[in-house]
Amino acid sequence: MDLHAMDSYIKSLIKEAGHQIRNSFLSDITIESKSNANDLVTNMDKEIEQFFIGRIRRDFPKHKVFGEEGFGDDIQSTDGVIWLLDPIDGTMNFVHQKRNFAISLGIYVDGIGKLGYIYDVVNDDLYHGVENGGAYFNDEKLKPLLKTNIAESIIAMNATWAIPNRYLDNDAIIQLIRDVRGTRSYGSAALELAYLASGRVDAYMSMRLSPWDIAGGMVIAKEVGAVTTSFKNDPANLLKQDTFIAANPSIHQELLEKYIKFK
Amino acid sequence: MDLHAMDSYIKSLIKEAGHQIRNSFLSDITIESKSNANDLVTNMDKEIEQFFIGRIRRDFPKHKVFGEEGFGDDIQSTDGVIWLLDPIDGTMNFVHQKRNFAISLGIYVDGIGKLGYIYDVVNDDLYHGVENGGAYFNDEKLKPLLKTNIAESIIAMNATWAIPNRYLDNDAIIQLIRDVRGTRSYGSAALELAYLASGRVDAYMSMRLSPWDIAGGMVIAKEVGAVTTSFKNDPANLLKQDTFIAANPSIHQELLEKYIKFK
Repeated sequence: MDLHAMDSYIKSLIKEAGHQIRNSFLSDITIESKSNANDLVTNMDKEIEQFFIGRIRRDFPKHKVFGEEGFGDDIQSTDGVIWLLDPIDGTMNFVHQKRNFAISLGIYVDGIGKLGYIYDVVNDDLYHGVENGGAYFNDEKLKPLLKTNIAESIIAMNATWAIPNRYLDNDAIIQLIRDVRGTRSYGSAALELAYLASGRVDAYMSMRLSPWDIAGGMVIAKEVGAVTTSFKNDPANLLKQDTFIAANPSIHQELLEKYIKFK
Repeated sequence: MDLHAMDSYIKSLIKEAGHQIRNSFLSDITIESKSNANDLVTNMDKEIEQFFIGRIRRDFPKHKVFGEEGFGDDIQSTDGVIWLLDPIDGTMNFVHQKRNFAISLGIYVDGIGKLGYIYDVVNDDLYHGVENGGAYFNDEKLKPLLKTNIAESIIAMNATWAIPNRYLDNDAIIQLIRDVRGTRSYGSAALELAYLASGRVDAYMSMRLSPWDIAGGMVIAKEVGAVTTSFKNDPANLLKQDTFIAANPSIHQELLEKYIKFK
């Protein structure tokens, strides 16, 4: 695969999709719920996924697509070239804020991340990474993450994980909130990964993310030295929903060992 | 007071200060701690406050200044014209992220908010409000807040208030997190108020804010119909640190009655 040619093609495709999304602000958006009342999907999530799939089918007929809205392929293994796509990551923000959402896309070959993209549509900011080729915020190369420690860290995590829940001992998370410099929550896994890769937060963690939420960001994060795993320290799951943590390498192990306690 | 002339003067002043802050990204910033290790202050917080005070002393010698960094006046009452200023609201974001911070400024006359400004320095986005004259996001007039309900609301609040703390029964906050559509935390009271006024979040609450954190945002929020009070439903405190909630009017009362329980 010619990563350079693919990269140019994808950037153009993403910008075109972003343009469509920004245009949608001028008309009414149709909002539905999926798994629960707060799991939103709009006509734009679906249209943008279909837009990508149409182009991929036409220009890369052998590639497979694993997309949030389910218009892609039935993916059971990581074999071959797979586009992992979330057409609008942060749909709640898209609906309520008309900002703070992103197009998230990762291109994986036999389970290895080759290209990753997170496009902050409203700010027209594109984060991208190329395997062994570095990570970028627009045209600016992102620097390797600097050494840090828990006490000086900002952690992106939703307050949901700090309250009693069926998966984690929330007392350990409460201790984490006490021990770090601060916590933030932005409502888009992709943007939170982009923030991690840019050094604006030092870790991002969630109990429940899907492959398309993290695939693009993982490629970008790896290029600046971030570590991405499940909460069990396994490689992040590219086939199904799982726990996920992306962190500055100087705090990843301590976060897992000291603050993540399964019930 | 000629609000229109003041408004033009202040906008120009704020943009000039913003320019100085953006320029500071090119040089090293000096960081110190204040009340605790995570309460940061930089040379820029101090320099920008002094920049404002220099101009106010020269051009409005009868006005008083109540500023976060303490270079202004000793304010013991709300009498007269007071500029309530936070030169960099969200200093932790300024230091760690070089974004997501704001200049926050409110002009109060005998305790009544006349003009309010929140300037998102990096995005060059200015939110402002004029008493009985409306609120604006740059040149766009902000619309009155639409009716909503708890289940469909997004609440801006830090995870700190969801964990056991000395002030509030956190079980009620845990229930709030379960009942709302989502929570967010951005790390700048001023920007969170700007988000409320723009309808991007439906409430913002904090156990501990100072007058300069909220003064500008209160003027803006009022113009779109938001309600701003202490957690005891008293008028927000303009003289000292206190609890604070700003909310869509359709949920303000329910938030206070059902979810805010003092210990």
